[in-house]
Amino acid sequence: MQVIKYPDPSTYKSILERPTMDNSEIEARVLPILHAVRTNGDIALKDFTHQFDKVELNDLLVSEEELKEAELSVPDELKNAINLAYINIFKFHEAQQQSPNPIETMEGVVCWRKSIAIEKVGLYIPGGTAPLFSTVLMLGIPANIAGCKEIIMCSPAGKDGKINATILYTAKLVGIHKIFKLGGAQAIAAMAYGTASVPQVYKIFGPGNQYVTSAKQLVTKHGCAIDMPAGPSEVMVYADDDSNASFVASDLLSQAEHGNDSQVILLARSERFANKVLEEIELQTNSLERKEFIGNTLKNSKIILVENDQQALNIINEYAAEHLILATTNADELAEKVINAGSVFIGGLTPESAGDYASGTNHTLPTNGYAKAYSGVSLDSYVKKVTFQKISKTGIQNIGNIVEIMASAELLQAHKEAMSMRLKATQN
Amino acid sequence: MQVIKYPDPSTYKSILERPTMDNSEIEARVLPILHAVRTNGDIALKDFTHQFDKVELNDLLVSEEELKEAELSVPDELKNAINLAYINIFKFHEAQQQSPNPIETMEGVVCWRKSIAIEKVGLYIPGGTAPLFSTVLMLGIPANIAGCKEIIMCSPAGKDGKINATILYTAKLVGIHKIFKLGGAQAIAAMAYGTASVPQVYKIFGPGNQYVTSAKQLVTKHGCAIDMPAGPSEVMVYADDDSNASFVASDLLSQAEHGNDSQVILLARSERFANKVLEEIELQTNSLERKEFIGNTLKNSKIILVENDQQALNIINEYAAEHLILATTNADELAEKVINAGSVFIGGLTPESAGDYASGTNHTLPTNGYAKAYSGVSLDSYVKKVTFQKISKTGIQNIGNIVEIMASAELLQAHKEAMSMRLKATQN
Repeated sequence: MQVIKYPDPSTYKSILERPTMDNSEIEARVLPILHAVRTNGDIALKDFTHQFDKVELNDLLVSEEELKEAELSVPDELKNAINLAYINIFKFHEAQQQSPNPIETMEGVVCWRKSIAIEKVGLYIPGGTAPLFSTVLMLGIPANIAGCKEIIMCSPAGKDGKINATILYTAKLVGIHKIFKLGGAQAIAAMAYGTASVPQVYKIFGPGNQYVTSAKQLVTKHGCAIDMPAGPSEVMVYADDDSNASFVASDLLSQAEHGNDSQVILLARSERFANKVLEEIELQTNSLERKEFIGNTLKNSKIILVENDQQALNIINEYAAEHLILATTNADELAEKVINAGSVFIGGLTPESAGDYASGTNHTLPTNGYAKAYSGVSLDSYVKKVTFQKISKTGIQNIGNIVEIMASAELLQAHKEAMSMRLKATQN
Repeated sequence: MQVIKYPDPSTYKSILERPTMDNSEIEARVLPILHAVRTNGDIALKDFTHQFDKVELNDLLVSEEELKEAELSVPDELKNAINLAYINIFKFHEAQQQSPNPIETMEGVVCWRKSIAIEKVGLYIPGGTAPLFSTVLMLGIPANIAGCKEIIMCSPAGKDGKINATILYTAKLVGIHKIFKLGGAQAIAAMAYGTASVPQVYKIFGPGNQYVTSAKQLVTKHGCAIDMPAGPSEVMVYADDDSNASFVASDLLSQAEHGNDSQVILLARSERFANKVLEEIELQTNSLERKEFIGNTLKNSKIILVENDQQALNIINEYAAEHLILATTNADELAEKVINAGSVFIGGLTPESAGDYASGTNHTLPTNGYAKAYSGVSLDSYVKKVTFQKISKTGIQNIGNIVEIMASAELLQAHKEAMSMRLKATQN
């Protein structure tokens, strides 16, 4: 890890800069895939699945039998853990429900907002070595609480033509209506445009590789919404000299095991503590299987020494980390001052892995500094808030003249007339 | 207006199709503007302002004197109306504030979300014939309530080198910190990337022409968030035979006066009523100044005759109108069944113009069918909801094993270890 000692504020921006990626090449490869799926539907989907996933599928839809089989094959201990995580995530997201709150802004003028579920949503769960069933919980539970009428999911099948059993078990648990064996940009295209077998959805959620990310970005141009723009995962940990160096090291390693492009930054108060963490990292890495992998990630990682809490906070808010761990003794106090972060983990006993799996918060969070303007996935992500208003005769008398004057001043005569006519009709 | 009588449900999609625009040509013209501003900053801004707005500016920032001058020149009657609208809009958006609601998902595991203002936001107010000061209210008031630390605004100057006085008056009223004489794609670029005089912001709001819209879409690729994708404004009115044909006509005309590309659709229950509305439109148009303009818009507009409320609701939810006026006697009941719309106006006495100016609701709404997945601008648009969590010793004992099992099953060993270590340390 690179150690940067007490940097000058003028250098924060460059120190914290994330690797920028030119994705024009990726886009150029994704665009024809989107076009092919839009034009040739299921035929294109099967072709791409054969080409990219090396599997020939007759049916893209996961069958009831496959779901039953999956359920039987997941060990009870794991099912139990998933079920308990489900309960926590459900509780936290259920509490995000909002009822309409009518406001009478003037006598006779009543306005309110109502949260209405997005009717059709699509979730994407990547394939690869690790079966990300936790993401099925994170994306499926709020969709279900919101009351989305059609919740579909795409995930690539392995070479055996099947989706991982734990993913299927979890998908059934959270109430996904249809699951398709589809991965990559073609899965995103299928959900955005619809095909004979895959229903079109209005919003797509979920992580993925660069092709998936690029496809999601591109379909927004055709009216399909997405959860948020994506970038590599990242953690920032702030520790003081009283923090537990083993815990801190374990949190940095958790992030490092995600892969080469993940970002790991430690803010520490002294070189002594930084060295303790480095020693701990070495020690702990030895017992981990992905040693080399982790070593590579850590080469690009940084330890920044800071003078005091204020400097740490300035760097924290400038970086806007996806995951921010405050491992200091005054973590509660510091948490109050955090402005930019996706999710904040307070105190030495709150590792990121708690939030990744089971505490209840969502683990789909803004990366790449997007936390400056974006929120993570929540129940809000699955509803739109429609405004309603109703005006009575008294209301027209109260508001009419204001609207007339403003519409005239904006030179919108017909807007004015629409009100004048009602004013006249309700007088006396 | 084209009259479509009792269409078959299979034809809804094609009847309701919005004009699609190929904006690749616009994009090709906008990209070099973005690049120039990013590279040459203020020099590029002044060049483009000279080139496009035909005005030579020494200073892009509106001065205190200009603001004072503007305040003096706005008539008291208009100021009064704006001030009253301000109060209503403030009330409605203030009520959208949310306090953190900590949830103890398991004993010792506490999670909450906190709404934190986006630090830097930029508002765009178009120039042109009509001074859209109402949009300054709609975008500025929630920014202020949210507590955004830096609220800037761009609007093009006229040939006299000045921004419309009412726009300036309103900008000061709502608490905009800095106002720049900038329009078009160059204004969006300035706010997204920052220049010597224009601060960089994290999110850009506001309507604009195709160049502005395209620039907003493009800067999202560089990490700047935007309020929502944009399309031409639109209204759908549903009326039965007891509705007031003059009111209905006036609402359709209000939308029509926005311009050639605006969408106007009437759902009616009988040909007789449709004809009454058509007569009223002719009558009312005669007394309007923008006669020809309105005539052109109405040529592309539609009246759809429907058999019953259910059919109307199906069409309403398929179209997902920016503005939906329910002018029927059972409007309250129907409003409950609306799924897709930006803003709903209930009953014959609730014209769109009330919401456009002064009722309190926001008039920046999803067009082009985006209401299926997007909400209009609200206080939510100016905050991000950051999640926080804190786990105690008891919490670790309760959640630890769940996390260990799930992390192992996802093959993320370091995630597991981060928890195991804490489990061990808190056992005794």
